[in-house]
Amino acid sequence: MRIGVLTSGGDCPGLNAVIRSVVHRAVADHGDEVIGFRDGWKGLLECDYLKLDLDAVGGILARGGTILGSSRVRPEHLRDGVERARGHVAELGLDAIIPIGGEGTLKAARLLSDNGLPIVGVPKTIDNDIAVTDVTFGFDTAVGVATEALDRLKTTAESHQRVLIVEVMGRHTGWIALHSGMAAGAHAIVVPERPFDIDELTARVGERFEAGKRFAIVVAAEGAKPKPGSMAFDEGGKDIYGHERFAGIARQLSVELERRLDKEARPVILGHVQRGGTPTAYDRVLATRFGWHAVEAAHRGEFGMMTALRGTDIVMVSLAEAVESLKTVPESRYAEAECVL
Amino acid sequence: MRIGVLTSGGDCPGLNAVIRSVVHRAVADHGDEVIGFRDGWKGLLECDYLKLDLDAVGGILARGGTILGSSRVRPEHLRDGVERARGHVAELGLDAIIPIGGEGTLKAARLLSDNGLPIVGVPKTIDNDIAVTDVTFGFDTAVGVATEALDRLKTTAESHQRVLIVEVMGRHTGWIALHSGMAAGAHAIVVPERPFDIDELTARVGERFEAGKRFAIVVAAEGAKPKPGSMAFDEGGKDIYGHERFAGIARQLSVELERRLDKEARPVILGHVQRGGTPTAYDRVLATRFGWHAVEAAHRGEFGMMTALRGTDIVMVSLAEAVESLKTVPESRYAEAECVL
Amino acid sequence: MRIGVLTSGGDCPGLNAVIRSVVHRAVADHGDEVIGFRDGWKGLLECDYLKLDLDAVGGILARGGTILGSSRVRPEHLRDGVERARGHVAELGLDAIIPIGGEGTLKAARLLSDNGLPIVGVPKTIDNDIAVTDVTFGFDTAVGVATEALDRLKTTAESHQRVLIVEVMGRHTGWIALHSGMAAGAHAIVVPERPFDIDELTARVGERFEAGKRFAIVVAAEGAKPKPGSMAFDEGGKDIYGHERFAGIARQLSVELERRLDKEARPVILGHVQRGGTPTAYDRVLATRFGWHAVEAAHRGEFGMMTALRGTDIVMVSLAEAVESLKTVPESRYAEAECVL
Amino acid sequence: MRIGVLTSGGDCPGLNAVIRSVVHRAVADHGDEVIGFRDGWKGLLECDYLKLDLDAVGGILARGGTILGSSRVRPEHLRDGVERARGHVAELGLDAIIPIGGEGTLKAARLLSDNGLPIVGVPKTIDNDIAVTDVTFGFDTAVGVATEALDRLKTTAESHQRVLIVEVMGRHTGWIALHSGMAAGAHAIVVPERPFDIDELTARVGERFEAGKRFAIVVAAEGAKPKPGSMAFDEGGKDIYGHERFAGIARQLSVELERRLDKEARPVILGHVQRGGTPTAYDRVLATRFGWHAVEAAHRGEFGMMTALRGTDIVMVSLAEAVESLKTVPESRYAEAECVL
Repeated sequence: MRIGVLTSGGDCPGLNAVIRSVVHRAVADHGDEVIGFRDGWKGLLECDYLKLDLDAVGGILARGGTILGSSRVRPEHLRDGVERARGHVAELGLDAIIPIGGEGTLKAARLLSDNGLPIVGVPKTIDNDIAVTDVTFGFDTAVGVATEALDRLKTTAESHQRVLIVEVMGRHTGWIALHSGMAAGAHAIVVPERPFDIDELTARVGERFEAGKRFAIVVAAEGAKPKPGSMAFDEGGKDIYGHERFAGIARQLSVELERRLDKEARPVILGHVQRGGTPTAYDRVLATRFGWHAVEAAHRGEFGMMTALRGTDIVMVSLAEAVESLKTVPESRYAEAECVL
Repeated sequence: MRIGVLTSGGDCPGLNAVIRSVVHRAVADHGDEVIGFRDGWKGLLECDYLKLDLDAVGGILARGGTILGSSRVRPEHLRDGVERARGHVAELGLDAIIPIGGEGTLKAARLLSDNGLPIVGVPKTIDNDIAVTDVTFGFDTAVGVATEALDRLKTTAESHQRVLIVEVMGRHTGWIALHSGMAAGAHAIVVPERPFDIDELTARVGERFEAGKRFAIVVAAEGAKPKPGSMAFDEGGKDIYGHERFAGIARQLSVELERRLDKEARPVILGHVQRGGTPTAYDRVLATRFGWHAVEAAHRGEFGMMTALRGTDIVMVSLAEAVESLKTVPESRYAEAECVL
Repeated sequence: MRIGVLTSGGDCPGLNAVIRSVVHRAVADHGDEVIGFRDGWKGLLECDYLKLDLDAVGGILARGGTILGSSRVRPEHLRDGVERARGHVAELGLDAIIPIGGEGTLKAARLLSDNGLPIVGVPKTIDNDIAVTDVTFGFDTAVGVATEALDRLKTTAESHQRVLIVEVMGRHTGWIALHSGMAAGAHAIVVPERPFDIDELTARVGERFEAGKRFAIVVAAEGAKPKPGSMAFDEGGKDIYGHERFAGIARQLSVELERRLDKEARPVILGHVQRGGTPTAYDRVLATRFGWHAVEAAHRGEFGMMTALRGTDIVMVSLAEAVESLKTVPESRYAEAECVL
Repeated sequence: MRIGVLTSGGDCPGLNAVIRSVVHRAVADHGDEVIGFRDGWKGLLECDYLKLDLDAVGGILARGGTILGSSRVRPEHLRDGVERARGHVAELGLDAIIPIGGEGTLKAARLLSDNGLPIVGVPKTIDNDIAVTDVTFGFDTAVGVATEALDRLKTTAESHQRVLIVEVMGRHTGWIALHSGMAAGAHAIVVPERPFDIDELTARVGERFEAGKRFAIVVAAEGAKPKPGSMAFDEGGKDIYGHERFAGIARQLSVELERRLDKEARPVILGHVQRGGTPTAYDRVLATRFGWHAVEAAHRGEFGMMTALRGTDIVMVSLAEAVESLKTVPESRYAEAECVL
């Protein structure tokens, strides 16, 4: 078999583990050939690839990033995108393509699959918001990075009281905020799914100070917002990549809480630190299992499908199903966390 | 409600997170009283306990060990054990007991439950070998510790070739060996479920050297054994706690492989390092969810049950079901790992 | 001997190690009594203290923060501050006071020492800018935190180029920026000692992109500034504690560089994360040695002195000498780092 | 200038940082050419090398091991070793050779230097036992690894008492044992410099148990030995590389202490884990400074010299002086540590 792999979208710890696993299973066990397209779909559309043999993936298991590079270009972005892709697949004699990416990539995967290309997808979302799989790799690492930062904040012993607002990833869903907030014992968590009441947040933080505590920790998902009209809030405007430019929930909350409580309030912005570095063991194992199962699915001719974790098993689900909905944090999880606003 | 908590059996990262979660949910949300028995069942049998309020559990979320201590004494170890336990429960006016422990503790929990005591159990096994829950807390941390050690071994650049045999926990099951071996890309993994062929292991390691590689990494679960008769093997004899005394699979393999391959072979014995220290974010979240759900189950009168993770949900399963069987590594998982003998 | 200890000023990893070391040496070896004043000098001025025996310092060696708390109040802040301090020292029968703190604390220590109080100081500055000692504890931990964050940023593999500006501590000196920038291989470092040329910084970053690199990492000490007039720069205004309120060099640089280069530029703000958490082994050893030597100096009657590291030895230097000057990064160190602007 | 670099002897975190620094300073700043000999002196004796340009050292700063490989072969091991070396240096037109290695390598460096070759050495000893430099890189990382393991052991809360004996590196000197033991608060430390009294060690550990403590932690440098005749002790016999084969101080102490105290005693053997992995920020900075200064010394024609750290400065010392003596732990440091036997 001849397999083409690509990684698309934002950085996510574990991508290299998937690539390595695909190569190990395909090349070492099945005697397949594997090529890797550079910078995601762009590489497929421009026929820009490299051979992936065992040596090419030596030593990458624990490495962050992706040896294939990544971009946000997708077939539907270009006229004739699908035809160009189909053409190259034929030229290269590919029997299967394994794209590893998020919602956008899986939609593109589905489009190409509907157009007859042999696709087996591997889901990638550091926010853990793809509904049909219990967990996606990279999430555990990001939560770990945020949790370590929060742990360090909790040792402050200075007597003048302060609020620390840690901004974590999560533009549309609050999974990273929820898990890191729970893991580190934050005093308040705000998530995109539930616009928060600034008075309630202020009161929650204020209670800590009235009880004589030295600090209060707030975890804010980047996409969290106050209830409309409750607080001056700068939506940020977008830059050319669709990202918020100047506003940041942590900064705005630090200004607002400082004003309301007359206590020092400081933001901590982890940004891209959460996307990088060595993946945790959990993420490496999950990524490895996804890669292995993707190769097996390809060999079984199960195209138009995607790997997913259900309990402790890796199963295949249809790409159609995969992109239907976002996995938002359900109400039931808020109660467990005790501090989500 | 008045709730009694206890932690029994070996150390496991996450125990404190469970205790804290029980107290937070019960005391802060339900207005319950919580007491903690010292050193596991021993505390219940001897009525040795302390009050657990919010202050008592302040700052313990990220701490290894258990503020309640632990022991291996269980009710069935003593004559009148059950009656003594029943007596103290009555004296103390306890409405629920939440024992957190492994197989032995859950069996004791079942015994007491069958005798009418209001028990809601929380499973604890660092080996992740309780069948009715997808994952148990502490496992991720142990795998992480082993993986970090393995990662460090993989950077060796000395030209004289050597084998490194890392002994990890797993007396009866190979889950920690499997996951850390996969996460770190070990070259061979031996597990208790499958007595290994020393010739095969020697060949596996030898191939690395013939290919000019500088090192070979073997991960050995402590309970792994060679096929009978294939290799001189000292079962170790037991000490008064039932632990192997002198033999160790890593040491014996280092001697055997050095002899067979005429290459340096060194054991790495992580021992209790794997049981200690700050739990990972994953383990803290799982432990916290277990504690919260145990309290909720107690309030619903669901006794004789135990918390368990199924997919992404926490559910209650009967203690009877919980202790039926050990979760051994299934054949299907060996293929994914590619290097299990 | 009766010794009083206090920790003053900002949080710094290693404070607890000093306290523990003082207690171990004094109580266990000399049979002394040790008390700890709460929240720094405030505790001495208000006679607010607790007894510090071996149990009181059990388990604190690896803990961030300080069990005694800290504040920024100093004797010279209050009328009769010196007399009140002297009064309490007499009432409590103290033979020595060991204040652990930064420049402000050491100045206060000197003032009290000049007024006859028996003071032996221990220097504390996470910025490592006290001139008379080669290194101060806490610095290594802070550099480590920043370096780990920088390491994670360096694995980015996305094809659209971006600049990441990491803001680290260092209001007046660039030691943390220099060391973390060197340790992680940053592409540019800006420090307070040398106002930077924004054109030069833009060119430095631009070169990376022209060479096809995917990212550029800039490390900015919080007190770094552009050369006057070269770039719109908001000095920030101060809050009631004398801290910059809204401006941040990382945010301002991200806006400026994004505008100039037309590439995505994102700030990473580690803030208080750098001050907290478990101290590194290096910091614990240095802090322990400082505490031990402070006790020995007290027993030798060497007052008006402070512990300092010179090479591998701990020596005593006069408090007068200690507060003379700030240890700024010398020119010679810039050349070694190769990327300081 | 044309410079040849090589790394010799055992693995040590920071080697790649030195190599990278040499290349950055020499190639980028001086316009030099740099080549790297493979596997230490072996590469120089066999003229086996690779070109080292900026790309060759991209991304290696944080990596453990050495991209050049290492071996224990030295010129004096071979007949005509010196002449062969001289020959290749001439053939390759090398103006300077920068060998990075330990005592053996520095002796070889001195031999070649005495024979007219242009050598500038960089010291490497993970044990930190080269006398003329305050610190050597790799030591901080090794101490950190040992300290993290010790930290994890200190959280044990099981009620049945046990002794944990952690074996750390240090065949001839106890620096790693001293620093990690101090950093983690071990209860006893045994070092090669001082054969220990097993009765004293037993008593030290026994005191912990009599005081009701749950565990005792002993740190043993691998070269530590009991006083002759006090305890059955297997010197181990040597393997073909001169390494101890079967005996290990930790195992033997675990057997002895278990017998004497009738408490569980378990060894933890970190082995090569201490030599590998990402160097700490401290080690990367020191290694980087060493590499930079070695290049500068070469440009100044200062041959027969070696880089060394004195306080906060990097200075050059003569290779003759460098190999004179081993830096053993002095008596004064034992007192500070409070638990060295």
